[in-house]
Amino acid sequence: MYTLVLVRHGQSTWNLENRFTGWTDVDLTPLGEAEAREGAQLIRDAGLTFDQCHTSVLKRAIRTLNIVQEELDLLWLPVHRHWRLNERHYGALQGLNKAEMSQQYGEEQVFIWRRSYDTPPPQLTPDDERHPSRDRRYASLKPQELPLSESLKDTVARVLPYWHATLEPAIRSGQRLLVAAHGNSLRAMVMHLDGMSEEEITGLNIPTGLPLVYELDNNLKPLKSYYLGDPDAAEAKAKAVAEQAKAGVAK
Amino acid sequence: MYTLVLVRHGQSTWNLENRFTGWTDVDLTPLGEAEAREGAQLIRDAGLTFDQCHTSVLKRAIRTLNIVQEELDLLWLPVHRHWRLNERHYGALQGLNKAEMSQQYGEEQVFIWRRSYDTPPPQLTPDDERHPSRDRRYASLKPQELPLSESLKDTVARVLPYWHATLEPAIRSGQRLLVAAHGNSLRAMVMHLDGMSEEEITGLNIPTGLPLVYELDNNLKPLKSYYLGDPDAAEAKAKAVAEQAKAGVAK
Repeated sequence: MYTLVLVRHGQSTWNLENRFTGWTDVDLTPLGEAEAREGAQLIRDAGLTFDQCHTSVLKRAIRTLNIVQEELDLLWLPVHRHWRLNERHYGALQGLNKAEMSQQYGEEQVFIWRRSYDTPPPQLTPDDERHPSRDRRYASLKPQELPLSESLKDTVARVLPYWHATLEPAIRSGQRLLVAAHGNSLRAMVMHLDGMSEEEITGLNIPTGLPLVYELDNNLKPLKSYYLGDPDAAEAKAKAVAEQAKAGVAK
Repeated sequence: MYTLVLVRHGQSTWNLENRFTGWTDVDLTPLGEAEAREGAQLIRDAGLTFDQCHTSVLKRAIRTLNIVQEELDLLWLPVHRHWRLNERHYGALQGLNKAEMSQQYGEEQVFIWRRSYDTPPPQLTPDDERHPSRDRRYASLKPQELPLSESLKDTVARVLPYWHATLEPAIRSGQRLLVAAHGNSLRAMVMHLDGMSEEEITGLNIPTGLPLVYELDNNLKPLKSYYLGDPDAAEAKAKAVAEQAKAGVAK
């Protein structure tokens, strides 16, 4: 049996400001840092440990991982950062707050972009300063790999190659993995692991800071999965995230 | 021309307590954290940046690197941790303070272990709880790779394979490297780069927290090397480190 632990980063500065974040590299707030520390405590209390760590190239996930490693005294573990674990790219919505979005596109349209599986928001144009080709960390990507906007379906399509090429072989070799990432890159993995439908995954909300444990059989099929800590707390947190989503609060 | 930057971690809790540290995994003090932040500022002021980072598997070096990456907004850079960049292994001296060492071995003997190039301190015995085979992070090493005590010569011999196999090819491929490590693992690289004699390297003291910049030609021969910041401050800091060494203050 294999064990895999997923952690979604906690509150970022743009969660606070109610802006669509996506690939924008904003930091954690003090609350987001505290969520990481609490997640680490739950991992320690559960007696879990790891052999290697994976995260995105966005600092809110990297700092979450750093804090968890510090708290568990596991800073020495190998860490693999990869752009395929980044948050969903929200295209031209990135940086807009709720009022700006409603004004530009109407609330109904914004709701569709958030909750549909395969409708991407408007793309960034090549001259947009938010275009990922302007960011050195993506310099080695092929132009067709650089997202200008993503539906959840697009995010799933770019996360899964990393699952198949990197995470899956590592798990099969007996490595206990900790993955610190984002709401939608983690959804992609959960959808794949649990064989969820498009409807199921758009309805799923992963709570922040609560480690999600998967126990996998030899074929990497889930035997069971659960959030660490008080189940009521996990449910309340997932509900809060869902309510935020309904209210249009940014990810 | 290639550029390489080396940073020695700052004050650790055992520096404060005047204990031989070696492979013991002690944390930075608040002063050690401040040294890392100041080092990062010097790098930023010099307009230097990096493509990848290398460090040891000891948290005082890893946290120094984390702080520098945070300050430079480069948390997304790939980080390679390797035991070959660890501090010199001080064998049975690890954990002893100055008074305990003098009592057990005499001051003259301790001075020889500190300042000679090729005299290792007494080895750890297999049943010693400080034996590195008891530490999970070294589980993949061959028994003959696990040091039980090292002279500076031994440290040089285990650092240089990492230089030749990993750092050198990365530099030649155009990667700008930041290496955050320890007094003696950095000495090993400096000895190699500058073609120093055994006498020269035992007399060299690398100040903590001050980035050491190497500009290398196509054959990786140094064109020049210098500490960032005020030259007088660098000299004063190197002198302070030398005085500490004379006084038997632990590394």
